[in-house]
Amino acid sequence: MRPIMHAQRNCEDQQKINHFLNHTRTGLLGLSDGLQPYVIPLNFVWWNSCIYFHGLSSGRKVSIIKQNNAACFTIFEEFGTVTDPVPAKTDTAYMSVMLFGDVEKVTQLEDATAVLQQFLNKYVPGFYDRPLSKVHVDKYRSSLDNQTVSVYRLQPHTITAKHNPVNEQHLFYPGKSASPSNY
Amino acid sequence: MRPIMHAQRNCEDQQKINHFLNHTRTGLLGLSDGLQPYVIPLNFVWWNSCIYFHGLSSGRKVSIIKQNNAACFTIFEEFGTVTDPVPAKTDTAYMSVMLFGDVEKVTQLEDATAVLQQFLNKYVPGFYDRPLSKVHVDKYRSSLDNQTVSVYRLQPHTITAKHNPVNEQHLFYPGKSASPSNY
Repeated sequence: MRPIMHAQRNCEDQQKINHFLNHTRTGLLGLSDGLQPYVIPLNFVWWNSCIYFHGLSSGRKVSIIKQNNAACFTIFEEFGTVTDPVPAKTDTAYMSVMLFGDVEKVTQLEDATAVLQQFLNKYVPGFYDRPLSKVHVDKYRSSLDNQTVSVYRLQPHTITAKHNPVNEQHLFYPGKSASPSNY
Repeated sequence: MRPIMHAQRNCEDQQKINHFLNHTRTGLLGLSDGLQPYVIPLNFVWWNSCIYFHGLSSGRKVSIIKQNNAACFTIFEEFGTVTDPVPAKTDTAYMSVMLFGDVEKVTQLEDATAVLQQFLNKYVPGFYDRPLSKVHVDKYRSSLDNQTVSVYRLQPHTITAKHNPVNEQHLFYPGKSASPSNY
């Protein structure tokens, strides 16, 4: 099988990258705890050219960020396996974006409220009949399971994107065989 | 929204963890380039209690591994958003596994062939009418786009798993609202 990444698969289409960042539901936050990597899945929003996520104000993620806030946030979607009569040419259809930058805590209640509203807009659009209030967010930040919650911002200094677009007729499906009639 | 991870959501069910590692299609390899995290999506197989992946024998991933082979391999699946009349209790249904260990190159052709056969079994089951030959793998390793390809093994010393199982009636769907009739 071909390795998933090829240099020639760079994606420069800003509209496609933005759409992908706006619609993909999970991102992977990579941190370095000294020389030990640490990768956690997170819900996120892409807003004002930043990645925003939230989490408990304690735990390993937060303690790493306090020591070293350099981050790599990777967002990925796989569309299926591309078949080929030659096994080594088996391939993967995918899109991925990597964002590099430092993570910072969002300290202003107004900003955190606006970010959490973006989360609701993304993950449960139309579910609530009125916008989130600062009072609700303030209560939320200080009372979730008796732990405080923080909102974080990653303002990327570098963004790279790769894609291998889907060619549906070449994708694998159960029962497909390498007979010449498939090519 | 609740942060995606809660300590009380640890999963200890080995059968469930194994099934998840065997069937999830993409994993995220986290490396530390000095103190700079680097996270890339990869196809992988879980075999003989190790994570195997492959890739070109050059590039940033390989140059980092040569300097620091400590890795965190994270596998994640999200099942949807769990709604609640209280916005702060919006939640995510998911399963995730993190594996920590050092990455090593698989140097024996026999071993690399067996691993690549596992890849074909996982990603294109039944597609080829005969097993992969060592000759094919040897040719593949030395001739893909004139670059060599390597197979890597991560033998984990630590595995952690978390889950928030799906309760389908509580998942968000387009058009769902926070009216009392939904609860």
